[in-house]
Parts: sequence; C-alpha cells; structure tokens
Amino acid sequence: MALSPYQQLEQEFRRLHAFRGAASILRWDSAVMMPRGSAHVRGEQLAALDSECHALLTAPKVSRLIERAQANQAQLEDWQLANLREMRRERDHAIATPLSLITRMARATSVAEVRWLEARQENNFALFAPHLEEVVALTRDKAQVLSQALGLAPYDALIDGFSPGFLSADMDQLFKVVGRRLPNLIREAIELQAQRPPLPLVGKVSVSKQRALAIEVMRALGFPFDRGRLDEASHAFTEGVWGDVRVTTRFDVNEPFTGLMGVLHEVGQAMYDLGLPEAWRDQPVGRDRGMALEESQSLLLEMIIGRSRPFLAWLRPLLEKHFGCTGPEWEVENLYHTLIRVRRGAIRADADELTYPVHILLRYELEKQIFEGTLPVRDLPEAWRTGFERRLGLRPATDTEGCLQDVHWAIGSFGYFPSYGLGSFIAAQLYESLRTESEHFDAEIAAGHFGGLFEWLRQNVHGRGASVGAQELIREATGKPLTAAPWLRYAEAKYLEHAAEPAAAVAGEPAGTTQ
Amino acid sequence: MALSPYQQLEQEFRRLHAFRGAASILRWDSAVMMPRGSAHVRGEQLAALDSECHALLTAPKVSRLIERAQANQAQLEDWQLANLREMRRERDHAIATPLSLITRMARATSVAEVRWLEARQENNFALFAPHLEEVVALTRDKAQVLSQALGLAPYDALIDGFSPGFLSADMDQLFKVVGRRLPNLIREAIELQAQRPPLPLVGKVSVSKQRALAIEVMRALGFPFDRGRLDEASHAFTEGVWGDVRVTTRFDVNEPFTGLMGVLHEVGQAMYDLGLPEAWRDQPVGRDRGMALEESQSLLLEMIIGRSRPFLAWLRPLLEKHFGCTGPEWEVENLYHTLIRVRRGAIRADADELTYPVHILLRYELEKQIFEGTLPVRDLPEAWRTGFERRLGLRPATDTEGCLQDVHWAIGSFGYFPSYGLGSFIAAQLYESLRTESEHFDAEIAAGHFGGLFEWLRQNVHGRGASVGAQELIREATGKPLTAAPWLRYAEAKYLEHAAEPAAAVAGEPAGTTQ
Repeated sequence: MALSPYQQLEQEFRRLHAFRGAASILRWDSAVMMPRGSAHVRGEQLAALDSECHALLTAPKVSRLIERAQANQAQLEDWQLANLREMRRERDHAIATPLSLITRMARATSVAEVRWLEARQENNFALFAPHLEEVVALTRDKAQVLSQALGLAPYDALIDGFSPGFLSADMDQLFKVVGRRLPNLIREAIELQAQRPPLPLVGKVSVSKQRALAIEVMRALGFPFDRGRLDEASHAFTEGVWGDVRVTTRFDVNEPFTGLMGVLHEVGQAMYDLGLPEAWRDQPVGRDRGMALEESQSLLLEMIIGRSRPFLAWLRPLLEKHFGCTGPEWEVENLYHTLIRVRRGAIRADADELTYPVHILLRYELEKQIFEGTLPVRDLPEAWRTGFERRLGLRPATDTEGCLQDVHWAIGSFGYFPSYGLGSFIAAQLYESLRTESEHFDAEIAAGHFGGLFEWLRQNVHGRGASVGAQELIREATGKPLTAAPWLRYAEAKYLEHAAEPAAAVAGEPAGTTQ
Repeated sequence: MALSPYQQLEQEFRRLHAFRGAASILRWDSAVMMPRGSAHVRGEQLAALDSECHALLTAPKVSRLIERAQANQAQLEDWQLANLREMRRERDHAIATPLSLITRMARATSVAEVRWLEARQENNFALFAPHLEEVVALTRDKAQVLSQALGLAPYDALIDGFSPGFLSADMDQLFKVVGRRLPNLIREAIELQAQRPPLPLVGKVSVSKQRALAIEVMRALGFPFDRGRLDEASHAFTEGVWGDVRVTTRFDVNEPFTGLMGVLHEVGQAMYDLGLPEAWRDQPVGRDRGMALEESQSLLLEMIIGRSRPFLAWLRPLLEKHFGCTGPEWEVENLYHTLIRVRRGAIRADADELTYPVHILLRYELEKQIFEGTLPVRDLPEAWRTGFERRLGLRPATDTEGCLQDVHWAIGSFGYFPSYGLGSFIAAQLYESLRTESEHFDAEIAAGHFGGLFEWLRQNVHGRGASVGAQELIREATGKPLTAAPWLRYAEAKYLEHAAEPAAAVAGEPAGTTQ
C-alpha cells in the first residue's frame, strides 16, 4: 500500500532523528572518550551529519510532502497535526538558514571564539570587538530571514530557535517583576545569612567516593543505567536521545558538592529526555519542548529539591556512608546553609540561585540593545559595568570578569540567555503545584522516594513531548499562566526564613515567611 | 571555478568516508560504552548511516560522474586513476547488492544467527540446516549479480568483498602446498615439544596490572595514544578511521597472555590503519588493501614477532615490573615454549599458529563445495567430521565442536575464511624480507626498538593504501610473488628447531634449521 504524504514525512523525520542521535553520541564521545588528536576527523564526521540533516529538511520533496499533508489535515489525529506543525517549524528554521549563511557564520564565529579567548586572557575587549560586530551583523541577517519565515519579530525568531513559544514581550514582563524585587531580596538575604555563617566543610573527598555517592543518588532518583551512563568531563552536560541518555559531571576533590550538584542538574534534563513519549520518540512531536523547559527540569532538581532540607535529610546518611564525614559541619542544617549561601559576585557560572537572575537580566537587556542597534559593540564594556553595578552594587574589576566572561555571543548564541531565567521561573511554578497537589511532598523527598515527583513530571511535562506549546504546557500543568510570582514566593520563603527565627528577631529584622 | 567530474567524485567519497567513520565509532561505542538497553536505538542509527552510504554509492549522479571522469582519464595523476578504480569497485559492489537483496539477506541472516545459537546449544544441526540453506541460496544470488558486475567468477566475486585481488585459484595453489606438508609438520612439532613440556604459569594476574603492561607495550610499539585508545570488550577488535583508531582486548586474570596477545593482534591492524597515507585518508585509494593484508599485519605482530625469543627477551623485565613474577616459569625460554605450544584441538578460535591453517583449509574447501552445490547443507556435519579427522587425526565429539562452532556462514560471510589463511602466508613473506633487509632485526626487537619494523611496513604496506592491488603490493614489498614457501620455511624453523638440540638429537630426530 502506498504511504500517505504524512506517513512519508514520518519516514523522512525518522531518518533525521537517527542522524541527530548519531551526532549526539559522537559529541558525547568527543568530550568524554575521544583522543585529543582526533578532533579534526570528528569535526568532519559531525559536519557531514549536520549537512545531511540540513539537506533533508530543505529538500523540495519534504516541502511538497508538508503541503500535501496539510491539504489532507482532516485525516490526521491530534498528535499527528502537532507533529506536522513541528515538522514545518524545523523545515522553516532550516530553510531560513541556507548553507551559505551557515558557512559564513561558522567561519565568523570560529574566528570570534579564538579572539574572545585571547581578549579574555589579556583583558582587552578591543581584540574581540570587531569580530563580535561581524557576528552580530550576521546574526541580524539570520534573524531577518527567520523572522519572515516564522512570522515573528527578528529577536523573537532567534528565541524560537532555543525556546519556542516564548516572546521577548513575555520575558520583559517576567524580568520586570523579578528585577524590581531582586536587589532588596538579595540584600536582605545576605544580611540574614551573615548572622549565621555556616561552618566550613574542610578536607578532600576522593573522586571515587564522590562518584559512588552520585551513582547511589542517581539510582534512588530512578535514573535507568540500562539506558544511560554517568561519566566525567571538563564540564557537566547531557547528550543522547530517548533510550540512550548520557550524563557527565566534573568532580573536584576540594568541593564535595560541585560534582553531585552537577549530576542533579544534568539528571533533571536526562529524566526529561528519558521520559519523552516512547511512541513518538523518533518524530519532532516527541522532542523536548525547548531549552527553557529543559533548564526548568535541571533547576527543579538541582536548586529547588537538591538544596532543600528534606533532600539533605535523606542525603546525610549517604554522605556519611560514602565520605565517612560525621562532624557538626555535616549536619543537615549546616549543609543547607552552605548550599544556599548568597554572595554578590561578578561571574555568572559561580552565582547562587538568588543572584543568578541578575546576571541573566543584564545579558538579556544588553543583547537586545546590541541587536536593535541602540548599543554599539564598542560601548558594551562600560554598559556592562554600569548595569551590573546598578543591579548588584558591584563593579567588575576587569572586562574578563565582565562582558568577556561568557562564550555565548562569540558563537552567535543571541536569544539563548533568557532561557536560563525562564527555566528558574518555570521550575518554581511547577514546584508550587507539586507541593500543592501532594501534601506529603517533603516527607517523600526526605524518605528518598522520588517516584511521585517524576510520575507527576512525566504526566505533566515529560510525557507531552512537543505536542503543545511551552506556555500552554505550563498552564495545563499548573492551572495558571507562567508568571514570576511563584518564583518570588519560593525565593522569599527560602531566603528570608531566618527572619522568623530568634536570632534574626533579636537583630530587629522584619518577620518573613516561614517554610 | 567549477569542479571537474573527478573532483566532484572526491567530494562525494569524502562524505561517504565521514559517514563510515561515524558508523565505526558508533560500533565501537556499542561494544564498549553503550548501555545494554540502548541496542535498538543504536541499530536504527547504524541502519540509517548504512543506507545513506548505499544510497550515495548507487546514486545515478555518482555513476554519471564516474563515466565522465573515465572519459577524461588523461588529465588524472596515477593515484587519482587508482582512486577512480576503487570508486568504481565500491560502486559496483553497492549496485550489485540492491536494497531489496540487502533486506532479504538481513532478515534471513538474523533468523539464521538465532537458530545457529540454539543449534549450537542443543548440539542439533537440524535446527540450523534449513536456515543455512536459505542464506546459501541468497548468497548465490548475490554472487551471481556481483559476478557480472565485477567480471569475476561468482565465488571470486564474494572473495573480492573481503580481500580484493585474490582469486580462488590463488588460494587453491597456496593451500595445496601447505596442506601437503602440514600434517607431518604438526606431528613432528608435537613430538618434539613433548620432549620438553614448559613449566606451567600458575596464579592470577589482576586486570589492572595486565592493562598497565599492555599500555607500556603499546607505547613502545609506537601506538599514538593521542589518536587512539585501548579499551576492554568481550572480544578483541579494532574500529575507527585514520586519525582515531580504537583497539580493544579482553583480559583474563587466569591467562596472563590472552589480553596482551589480543592487544598485539589488534595493534598490528591499528598501526596499518594509522599508517595509511594521510593525503588520501578520506578517499577509497587511502583505505587498507583488504582483510588478508589487515590480517597479515595482526599475525606478523601477534604470532611471528610477539611469540619470538627476541620479543620475549625484551618483554621479560616488563613482566617482572608489572606482574612481579620472577620464578623459573617466567624465564624467556619457558615463556617462548608456552606461547608456541602446538596442540590438536577441535576449536579454531583456540588453535595455535601451526594447526590454525588446517581449520581454515577445511572451511575453505567445504564452503566452496556448498556454494557450488556439490555438498548439500544436510551433509555438512559428516563432511566436516571426516575432513577434520583426515587432516588433523581428530574427530570432533559433537557438531557444536564441529561445523556449528563459527558464526560466519550463518551471517552469510562466504569467502571470508580464506583471508585468515592468506594473512599468515603474507605475514611470513613480509617477515622474511624484513629479516633479509635488516641484519639487526632480532637485536632491535630484543632492545624494544620497533621503529625500524614499522618504518619498513609504512613504506612497503601501510603507506600504499589501496593504490595497487594486493598481490602487486606484496610482490613490490618482497621482490617476489606471494607463495607459501616463506611460511613453510618460517614454520619449520620455528617448530622443528629442537631437532638441532642435543635432547632432540639423542631422540634420533633429523637435524632441522636453527633460528
């Protein structure tokens, strides 16, 4: 029997999925297993796979099939309609970035990245500026073409490449609310925490012990080691596809929690990938719903659950078992205060949960201005210093600790930073619903029972794949549209709770919300 | 400037090379890293890559380009002509095995392999016979089509898929000479060795110690760890492409040499792959010259050099360093006699250097008879038993230890076994030239200097890629056509040397060649 146009599309996208899966494992291999001298061979393999994927999406045949399938929409089920919509979106993105533009962009960003590294090392923004300008110009070209294809404003079209379903108008609204409250919240939290500094965790913990702990934690979380792995890499990341998801982290003998928190972050994303609907696993509708959602799963596990008293109450005996640590500094309360310590600092990657959104806000504002042409690239360093100081009361000592700290812009990733902020807000809203719907939530976490948590996430987030838009998914999962209110409630409860305690009361602080 | 048809072909085959390299790393990953439950996901990725390679080779565009490039041969350099010839050969093989045949073959062999496993477990050939018949019938179809495309006899066309450049007439000649001498040679060697049985190596050696030794040996051999790896797998194999070659072995705590000999075998092949000409590395002319040549490199290192007195003299202090073994059983002479022990046995995979060709000879004869229709599949078990007994004086107790021991025929690999035999003969002929040309060969090996060995191999074998035919390559490397004489000389010198020693003389043996 002849296949319908829609069925033929499923076949084409099945092939696309296989190529992408192969590329993902090869990227994992590059970072974890590959010999150092093999990078150029690997580069050629990945480029061949990428260009095959691009050729598949831009083939006239695929566009013809999409048109014919759309003409026969009445015969399709809901999930197939959603699948067709995602196929079209992927096709539009691919067609809007023709190979000539991809090539020019690849050339410009690879030079810019090298110059960025030099500029960072020498703390000399001028070395990087002309190359950033070129990348910005090319990104504007790309955004223009994408804008027409997707029917979105240029900057929104860039966001669509990372977190489809969000517009900069949404970001503006969310960031405005948070930005207004954040400076005071940070100040209050720091003052409160200063009254009760945690005991330091001293001594080294071997990598093998940290690894054994991480594996026991992953097993408890339900990570399926028959369909995934844990390895070490120079930074934590997750690669793979449904059915084969690989998590990495970096263990540091001097920092007993760095590796574990990296694991929690990545396992959050990995459980999302592994929980995607099996029936759609090789189709666009079976993919995750974008970076902001991915990030929300990571932050929910690492920041909200991993840095909570119930989780640490469960973790403490495991720390004793694997690390053999028993002193007062390893008591739950001390660990908790250690792990939620708020500090004003210049570097995003080192930032805590509360100051992190400040870093994102600044980047979001500046990249929009650069992109719209109201901030010339040469003025970026001063705009960064001023903006950062205004928001966090701290002036970065150098550009290396300022606008040169992240690689994102050098490689043309404009529209990417907002996903980090969105991820926090989504995580907090999901968390609020989880705790409202399950009255024993904290008790379950404290008992090391994570089944309820992931069952809820599978039903409300993971198992939906890309069948609905991101904001619709959040609304249906939590019963309300995405706002920053749950995050603010969560942050105030967590970081101002001291206010209700005797020590704080003596110090004359206003009473806060207790958890 | 527009690319010439030949240049366009180079581009197409560059893409093919990238896909094949990606597939090779994924196969390595499947055996070494992949979680157990991810096999079906990996299967889809490999199938997509394979079918992409097949589509590329069978595209009308490629055939048109080949015709046009052939029409302009005068403009091509020698290596380009050789490249064009290899392109055509790969195209011919691909076109002769259309997807419909590949699909039928894949289905038949996957069933046959399962039935073969069952038949082996239950020692019941009848369970396997009908499926083997189907595989044979399909292989005949394939050989017929290949035969016409390549202008070779059907069985020769199958050999061409593994070891291009060899015909069954060549094999007949080589195997006849060896087969005539072998029964007596084996008998004499066993009688001689019986006069001086080596002391047994007792005790366990941990995997980590064996691994450390293997790595030190690989470094000494010149294996470049910045472009390759050593890992453990359930069986020893080599995967990868020029610039990223990955060797595996299996260490056994009870067998201190199994893992190391596996390493030597695989490093022989790996050094070939790594020594292929860099300038042609992504073109057909830059590939290895077939299985028989690959096997010769493995056997030269594992069997001829690895099991020689000079090599063991160099290895002994390393054994002491890594294993801490010092007793008389670890003296060079005892190790040597342990590693060259000849035993009559039913299982090919356990066979020593001298009885191995017997196993191959039997398989070669039987598969030709099956293929030509003179041996019905149902008569295979008895033909095997009779043939084996005639050649080695030993009747396998069961079919599991007889015609059911290898997977090759179940998966349709007819024409593959002869490569193993060819590999031995080629290795011995190369070895003879090496020792003739370098008067200090043994001394260099004994000093752990392997540079001269690999420099010679690079000039005469590795660096030539597929630019000349296999037999031409051997003739140019050694100054004479491939014959079995060097192997017989080598085998007699090695296995009958005892004849010249006092003990043997006392026993009344005729004087043999001393090494």
